Amino acid sequence: MIRVGIVGSTGYGGCELVRFLLTHKEVEIKWVSSRTYTDEEYSSVYSSYFKLLDQQCVDEDITKYLDDVDVVFFATPQGVCAKMLNEEVLSKVKVIDLSADYRIKDVKTYEQWYGIDHASPQFIDEAVYGLCEINRDKVKQARLIANPGCYPTCSILSVYPLAKADLIDMDTLIIDAKSGVSGAGRGAKVANLYCEVNESIKSYGVASHRHTPEIEEQLGYAANQEVLLNFTPHLIPMNRGILITAYAKLKKGVNEVDVAKAYQCYDDEYFVRVLKSGVLPEVRSVKASNFVDINYKVDPRTNRVIMMGAMDNLVKGAAGQAIQNMNIMFGLDEKEGLMLAPAIL
Amino acid sequence: MIRVGIVGSTGYGGCELVRFLLTHKEVEIKWVSSRTYTDEEYSSVYSSYFKLLDQQCVDEDITKYLDDVDVVFFATPQGVCAKMLNEEVLSKVKVIDLSADYRIKDVKTYEQWYGIDHASPQFIDEAVYGLCEINRDKVKQARLIANPGCYPTCSILSVYPLAKADLIDMDTLIIDAKSGVSGAGRGAKVANLYCEVNESIKSYGVASHRHTPEIEEQLGYAANQEVLLNFTPHLIPMNRGILITAYAKLKKGVNEVDVAKAYQCYDDEYFVRVLKSGVLPEVRSVKASNFVDINYKVDPRTNRVIMMGAMDNLVKGAAGQAIQNMNIMFGLDEKEGLMLAPAIL
Amino acid sequence: MIRVGIVGSTGYGGCELVRFLLTHKEVEIKWVSSRTYTDEEYSSVYSSYFKLLDQQCVDEDITKYLDDVDVVFFATPQGVCAKMLNEEVLSKVKVIDLSADYRIKDVKTYEQWYGIDHASPQFIDEAVYGLCEINRDKVKQARLIANPGCYPTCSILSVYPLAKADLIDMDTLIIDAKSGVSGAGRGAKVANLYCEVNESIKSYGVASHRHTPEIEEQLGYAANQEVLLNFTPHLIPMNRGILITAYAKLKKGVNEVDVAKAYQCYDDEYFVRVLKSGVLPEVRSVKASNFVDINYKVDPRTNRVIMMGAMDNLVKGAAGQAIQNMNIMFGLDEKEGLMLAPAIL
Amino acid sequence: MIRVGIVGSTGYGGCELVRFLLTHKEVEIKWVSSRTYTDEEYSSVYSSYFKLLDQQCVDEDITKYLDDVDVVFFATPQGVCAKMLNEEVLSKVKVIDLSADYRIKDVKTYEQWYGIDHASPQFIDEAVYGLCEINRDKVKQARLIANPGCYPTCSILSVYPLAKADLIDMDTLIIDAKSGVSGAGRGAKVANLYCEVNESIKSYGVASHRHTPEIEEQLGYAANQEVLLNFTPHLIPMNRGILITAYAKLKKGVNEVDVAKAYQCYDDEYFVRVLKSGVLPEVRSVKASNFVDINYKVDPRTNRVIMMGAMDNLVKGAAGQAIQNMNIMFGLDEKEGLMLAPAIL
Repeated sequence: MIRVGIVGSTGYGGCELVRFLLTHKEVEIKWVSSRTYTDEEYSSVYSSYFKLLDQQCVDEDITKYLDDVDVVFFATPQGVCAKMLNEEVLSKVKVIDLSADYRIKDVKTYEQWYGIDHASPQFIDEAVYGLCEINRDKVKQARLIANPGCYPTCSILSVYPLAKADLIDMDTLIIDAKSGVSGAGRGAKVANLYCEVNESIKSYGVASHRHTPEIEEQLGYAANQEVLLNFTPHLIPMNRGILITAYAKLKKGVNEVDVAKAYQCYDDEYFVRVLKSGVLPEVRSVKASNFVDINYKVDPRTNRVIMMGAMDNLVKGAAGQAIQNMNIMFGLDEKEGLMLAPAIL
Repeated sequence: MIRVGIVGSTGYGGCELVRFLLTHKEVEIKWVSSRTYTDEEYSSVYSSYFKLLDQQCVDEDITKYLDDVDVVFFATPQGVCAKMLNEEVLSKVKVIDLSADYRIKDVKTYEQWYGIDHASPQFIDEAVYGLCEINRDKVKQARLIANPGCYPTCSILSVYPLAKADLIDMDTLIIDAKSGVSGAGRGAKVANLYCEVNESIKSYGVASHRHTPEIEEQLGYAANQEVLLNFTPHLIPMNRGILITAYAKLKKGVNEVDVAKAYQCYDDEYFVRVLKSGVLPEVRSVKASNFVDINYKVDPRTNRVIMMGAMDNLVKGAAGQAIQNMNIMFGLDEKEGLMLAPAIL
Repeated sequence: MIRVGIVGSTGYGGCELVRFLLTHKEVEIKWVSSRTYTDEEYSSVYSSYFKLLDQQCVDEDITKYLDDVDVVFFATPQGVCAKMLNEEVLSKVKVIDLSADYRIKDVKTYEQWYGIDHASPQFIDEAVYGLCEINRDKVKQARLIANPGCYPTCSILSVYPLAKADLIDMDTLIIDAKSGVSGAGRGAKVANLYCEVNESIKSYGVASHRHTPEIEEQLGYAANQEVLLNFTPHLIPMNRGILITAYAKLKKGVNEVDVAKAYQCYDDEYFVRVLKSGVLPEVRSVKASNFVDINYKVDPRTNRVIMMGAMDNLVKGAAGQAIQNMNIMFGLDEKEGLMLAPAIL
Repeated sequence: MIRVGIVGSTGYGGCELVRFLLTHKEVEIKWVSSRTYTDEEYSSVYSSYFKLLDQQCVDEDITKYLDDVDVVFFATPQGVCAKMLNEEVLSKVKVIDLSADYRIKDVKTYEQWYGIDHASPQFIDEAVYGLCEINRDKVKQARLIANPGCYPTCSILSVYPLAKADLIDMDTLIIDAKSGVSGAGRGAKVANLYCEVNESIKSYGVASHRHTPEIEEQLGYAANQEVLLNFTPHLIPMNRGILITAYAKLKKGVNEVDVAKAYQCYDDEYFVRVLKSGVLPEVRSVKASNFVDINYKVDPRTNRVIMMGAMDNLVKGAAGQAIQNMNIMFGLDEKEGLMLAPAIL
């Protein structure tokens, strides 16, 4: 059994980690830590776990609890993992960080977009960007995983095949993204109250959202060039899910057959489903599951390709992918604990 | 492996049966039948099942397909199962009927509340009312299960301990129930359109809802007397879930300790969770799971007890309980395939 | 022109006062005060009012601003109005208090259920309970209006005719109430976050909600007896609206004709609509309007009458009724500024 | 008093026409016609209008009723108005068509995108495209108004200033649009059921939506060149509202000051609100009102401008703009009947 600890366990990402890990046959949750709910029963925070996970939350000084576990998930705000990490931690446990701390290789870019100093930049190089379908081999060897952001996971997986195959003009790439409210976290903010979000939609972080450089960096590796793009997130009145709609000009001479061929790179990937022609991704079809549904449409009028991806922000965009990374790191079946079918209702 | 067939597979109940059966280790879905979508791929109806259940729906003449299966689930409108059932069917397969056809022992009561003639009343006596926690022993022996209605499951389980222990005056019993929209089915009706349901709440079937006699009959067995009650359902703008709030006068001399003791009858039941004192059931805490969360409050001002239950109408109120019944009938662990934790988000 | 000031203007009640007052032909909003948003533009809090009400919020020391207005609305938390009120205030302006401070005549009952000391009990006697349809004549003369609570308005108006006409056994009265989330206010609490409320329903304040004594007192006046009842509120995932479902035994010999006759007391009331037989109240049919829709159903099986009422908690349950009271106090057409049809979508 | 008739009155557009016209001081609704609900009371279709508009719906042979009215609104599916229109109709009444029949000047383009033959192309030339802020002078003289589509109204108004001022490269224009569910109408389709739409988001009509040529034509007039663009609509789980996010490259040398200056073209427009710098349009801030909220963001990294607009699809996108057109045609204050503040909750 893999012994697991979760830091920041009472946020939505932590809550979702627990949901999947409870059905994972090779895992035992040894402790859950929480700054806000220290010493309270986990099931008093989320009554859904009554009789399923009633243990008390431990405090955030997790160095005390490292010997009890093999892997630690950090489902914490930016900066927390970077502060806690050191060689001793990494010598004892594998670390999967769901925050952004180790996602961006250029520490200056990180500090500029996130507005905080990086407390342990020495580990950035070693950290593996845990987009499983792209970096599987590196994940196998990793001690430290930078679990990708929700928007980046959906955006990169949707655009990657065409960027990699050099079929689109990267300078024309625009990503218009839509997310459910759980992406905003569980903090008590007026802006996230039911009545402020319900029956509305708005964009936010226009031309300034932190996930932009993360997407640009990864698509840059794929396209083998520097990438600058527009990324615009929108807040949608639903709990879960992300849909991205991306636009780019096809390169000269590229046709629909080329595009279709490029997306075959996912043919052997269980969690990435390229839909049949004409079937458009929708959030409900992946809800509460680790799937990403992808499709594209070539518009001959404008010579653009529209790339679309749907995903659950809390699963493939956070907890699910984190567990997928854990499975790979520990040599388990990558799908273990993640076989739940989407709950379309 | 238990070989399963599902009639009426493309309704919401059928959709949910598929979701759970796909993770059930002892089950193989041999065929799914659908009148509306015959010969179409199941995953073209629910794209959530793309690559998970792509087989074509067969037609509704299921006599052709009985030899391939051990058990048939009927997730069909009232009257369909009663018409299809006969000795030959029962000699070949076990039948779990999610409709109301065999729930009510008095065929006249059935015909009066449902407004249709019963096509095979000869099987009513044999049918076991599949409320697992109450009738487990009978379920073990059954060929034919009348899977309880959604409202009745939640209502009966919430009130049963006090009715059985003779602690409440049954003449004062009132059940005020609230359900998500999936309870109304997947028929294309104006009344169930998004814009007609969203941002609203209404009662329906006041003093005339069909689940009333089902609840009355079962609570009558528990209380060992005839029961007449008021049951008022309400439509809530959410996909899943039922909450019931029931009211009754405590009998003379009954106190809170007596009430608490009565609810201990569920102490060994995995799927019935009697919450801690002061924790009120809520739908999200059982969503997408087979749990029923129950609690009560004694009001000394009025000498009434308020009984509350929360449940997912599609799971414990339909597909989940049907699978629980199947597990019992086939001698499996009752929880197999149903171990999913609630998806609180 | 009536010059108006609003204290606590940036809560949801205040926001709704502004919406209606902007179309009121006889009103000028002189100032809006806010503790949290002092010196900020009102339209920076609610961008819906951009170019419609851009004035800056003044601070809460409203004694400085009393000379500029004829009437002050208090849309404040419990206790605020009671602290601010004194003879000087009442000598200068009429006061309409949307909080509970002056609703309950027995100060001890108030202090017990609200858990705070009353700062100015000397004004309780004078305050008129502003349920316009019942107390219209007293409202005309009032200096100080205790604007009724949202649940009480809907509950009392639905039950009043039968209580007044002595047709029901008041000891059997149960009120099961359902409210949208705006009733919980705009405070930044985890419990009111979108993801905590959406796709769920729960009861709260069971056998202990503060609106209970208010309803009991007013129905006691109608029935001319002391009333003890069960009142159970539920939180519904929608922004606005209240639905109440009330149950009581009919007195001996009372029949449906008697009940129908009793509800004719509303025949001349514009804002109370007794629906046609068989049409059940629903929240969307009154949304964003000052109407209360009411109906009843007699159940001959149990000899109970089910009384139902639907209302917008922010309008007839708060801001709309407050303006209706203002209109009566100032001798205007009671409907002025309140003629908006419900926004069913 | 202007005497009004409404064809197709029981759809969502018709329902909203009634809501506004009931508060319009210069209007009398003479008849409402409905194919589905002929001879039924209007308030039996929408109980929100009980006691406000109880008249029976007349049949769709409106030639019988033309003498009673001055203006007829067609809130009908595509093709209905085109079939009913002739010289006799236009000699008797002014016509405001909320469908697409007369919006597109090139009848072949219309027939190609809508897939139907145009029954009265002879009136296309005369019809005025009723985007009030752009074509106000022509509207004044019109007998026949082609009321703009919902997406086009929001898209065109958001992009128009920069297209007109020649500040953007029209070949790079992409419009990503999001709409509430009422835009799909009131037809009884499975796809629009509550449970199919709720908790999800999807695109539809990708590279093929009918509003594309309408937007292209009007922006072509503004830019004085042929325009081909990508327009992608998305379905959002909310009743009302449209948000559009548009992207285009700035022309060489264009800076933020130029962009700001171009949007000053709306300075005197009551219903178009260009928000303060940094305030992003959101649907709730215009809900149930005739306002369009607009803003833009220049991204120096990519040299693109992001143009954003929020609007209520049923009001400025349908019924509200239709009434605004009526006001202009009849020489009334353009704002009469449309002064309602947005209902942010």
